[in-house]
Amino acid sequence: MSDSNALDGLTQALRKLPGVGAKSAARMAFHLLQHDKPGALQIARALEHAVGSVKHCALCNTLTEQDICSTCANPQRDRSQLCVVETPADQAALERTQAYRGLYFVLMGKLSPLDGVGPNDIGLQILFDRVVPRNERGEPLPAESREVQEVILATNFTAEGEATAHVIAQALKSRGVQVTRLARGVPVGSELEYVDLGTIAHALVDRR
Amino acid sequence: MSDSNALDGLTQALRKLPGVGAKSAARMAFHLLQHDKPGALQIARALEHAVGSVKHCALCNTLTEQDICSTCANPQRDRSQLCVVETPADQAALERTQAYRGLYFVLMGKLSPLDGVGPNDIGLQILFDRVVPRNERGEPLPAESREVQEVILATNFTAEGEATAHVIAQALKSRGVQVTRLARGVPVGSELEYVDLGTIAHALVDRR
Repeated sequence: MSDSNALDGLTQALRKLPGVGAKSAARMAFHLLQHDKPGALQIARALEHAVGSVKHCALCNTLTEQDICSTCANPQRDRSQLCVVETPADQAALERTQAYRGLYFVLMGKLSPLDGVGPNDIGLQILFDRVVPRNERGEPLPAESREVQEVILATNFTAEGEATAHVIAQALKSRGVQVTRLARGVPVGSELEYVDLGTIAHALVDRR
Repeated sequence: MSDSNALDGLTQALRKLPGVGAKSAARMAFHLLQHDKPGALQIARALEHAVGSVKHCALCNTLTEQDICSTCANPQRDRSQLCVVETPADQAALERTQAYRGLYFVLMGKLSPLDGVGPNDIGLQILFDRVVPRNERGEPLPAESREVQEVILATNFTAEGEATAHVIAQALKSRGVQVTRLARGVPVGSELEYVDLGTIAHALVDRR
């Protein structure tokens, strides 16, 4: 399309970014080459550094540069609570509330049968093995000797997130684990008149 | 915010992209590291290659890897017509019409006093020197011995684009150059009922 193979290659490459189509990619490429070549090199170096150094935490599956992430390694955290989230961004949102002192498990995705994402793709078995460990004879530990006493499901309140929470809840309850879900209700600061009906109905049912 | 400096660095770097804020940048970083590490490396290499090899065409100012871009170097093009556009993307749109056989001049921007973009920032002097060259004694060539006989203004029909076209037209007309502007009118395929009033008014005035 343009007069430069390097420019066309860059435009093609930028389309790998989520939510970026042909026109956005071309705009980004023009902007970087015209106005911000240092920024372009900064992005390139950051990408290479991150690809080379970022891996998954062996315990909670989040992205980290260590074998065990700083949250899992923190002795101050309550190890009897495990909060299940979809992404590190969701984990960060929960951390910003400063209202939770337990550990996390990051699914790195959600069940989405239409996109071909099944239980094995988001590491559900790793979660189950973490919550209900087995002894040397391969038998599940009884509830009283398990470290994790409560699993808090904090997947998103979308169709896929709800389905993921449902599948996890079913599987863990059948293993005798206490499973809870983030409360549904009216957001802080909102006026009832402008809140959608489903949210109000949930808030009514879950009133306290 | 996250457990990884490399991840935070990547998120910061991706905010250099136009139209990408903190949340989009985090989503892009997570997506690349989780699902598309080869894509991340491809973007990094494309950025480095483009920054190292892409420069401005000495004649038309567009982005190219050669000293003179392939359009300017093409002997088949009509050298008496010069079409002024804001960006290489606009040039590409005109090329796709296959309705223009002349040369281009790419401003790489538009006059925008509010953003501090003045005539010198978008290379207007280069354009004027191109259209009205000077002889050895520093005098402007007379109209009959100039290569460019017509300048077609194809800046965007936004406030800044119109202002840019106006400034260029004034300057070139005072030097005796024939200056034209892309026609304003009703877009192909549209129904009058849904066309805005300004466009219909222009189409009426410019009827042919």
